[in-house]
Amino acid sequence: MSAKHLEILIDEFNKLPGIGRKSATRLAFYIMNSNEKTVEDFAKALKDCKTLVKKCKVCGNFSENDTCDICDDMTRDHKTICVVEDSRDIINLEKTGKFNGVYHILNGKIAPLDGVTPDKLNIKSLLERITTDDIKEVIFALSSDLEGETTVLYLTKLLKPFGVTVSKLASGIPMGGNIEYADNATIAKALEGREIL
Amino acid sequence: MSAKHLEILIDEFNKLPGIGRKSATRLAFYIMNSNEKTVEDFAKALKDCKTLVKKCKVCGNFSENDTCDICDDMTRDHKTICVVEDSRDIINLEKTGKFNGVYHILNGKIAPLDGVTPDKLNIKSLLERITTDDIKEVIFALSSDLEGETTVLYLTKLLKPFGVTVSKLASGIPMGGNIEYADNATIAKALEGREIL
Repeated sequence: MSAKHLEILIDEFNKLPGIGRKSATRLAFYIMNSNEKTVEDFAKALKDCKTLVKKCKVCGNFSENDTCDICDDMTRDHKTICVVEDSRDIINLEKTGKFNGVYHILNGKIAPLDGVTPDKLNIKSLLERITTDDIKEVIFALSSDLEGETTVLYLTKLLKPFGVTVSKLASGIPMGGNIEYADNATIAKALEGREIL
Repeated sequence: MSAKHLEILIDEFNKLPGIGRKSATRLAFYIMNSNEKTVEDFAKALKDCKTLVKKCKVCGNFSENDTCDICDDMTRDHKTICVVEDSRDIINLEKTGKFNGVYHILNGKIAPLDGVTPDKLNIKSLLERITTDDIKEVIFALSSDLEGETTVLYLTKLLKPFGVTVSKLASGIPMGGNIEYADNATIAKALEGREIL
């Protein structure tokens, strides 16, 4: 390969999750064969995303303002919080159109073996919201694996004393499965059939 | 989704070949969670590739100089030209270590139904090389599908009058298959067993 900068671009694509060497090469050649505007737009989108997008002060979701559109939306039920691992999960939950409350992003789940102890998660800000915002219900939409279940158990114990209803997504999410890959119908079903803890 | 620029980045990833909406979302969130240096490097690699990499004046391969490293390499056999569709194919051929000649990139194959007529391909520059550089052999390393075979037939007819040996990659490349996906051993076998036309 005689073009060093092409090699660099292949390496950059190769660093992305799920992109192997062959795919990275395909993508780099696609870029080489695109017009300059396309490449400029792509590079700009990368930078803008990093510089202009921050996190919502309330729920931790990605947002371009101090608070996100969902937290700002006064037609939503601000007394019901859905707790998720990641802001990606919000996209899937929103797509079902079955949830009209607000969200709280934990930023992971309790996994002591991976060094994720409760103090590493956005639990303190969740407790603050519950005490100051008069929350009626907290719905856990976490992966149904060991770490997810552990996190639900831990947080349930923590939240119960506040007199808040605590629930979690029910049937539909396969055991050991990840919310990210569940389809809309499954997520909708799980929202409707959530079990009260 | 409340962050417009995140949506834009997802759209940009989604435009890449083989990247669906879910993968694009994964990649965009990966970018959001990377540090600024990583994103800067990626954006720079995209732009550099487009601005600094041009095409070799001789063979059409990507290069950062007027002529590519392969054409500049005086230890290689400049009397044997391997004709490929795309510069990506060169990477795979070079990996076999079995070819020490130079290349010529056609930039596609004859496909009249897709509007690719012979005049759209780098055939004129190939003929020029054959007349001026005293070429001994031309090896076709094209996909063994209908368009590839048509291109080989067309070019063989064109090149034979120059008294040059014309050959094509032999057994190994499965019919209807694409060179890009062939493994090194298969390509090496095909190089060794090329049939003289």
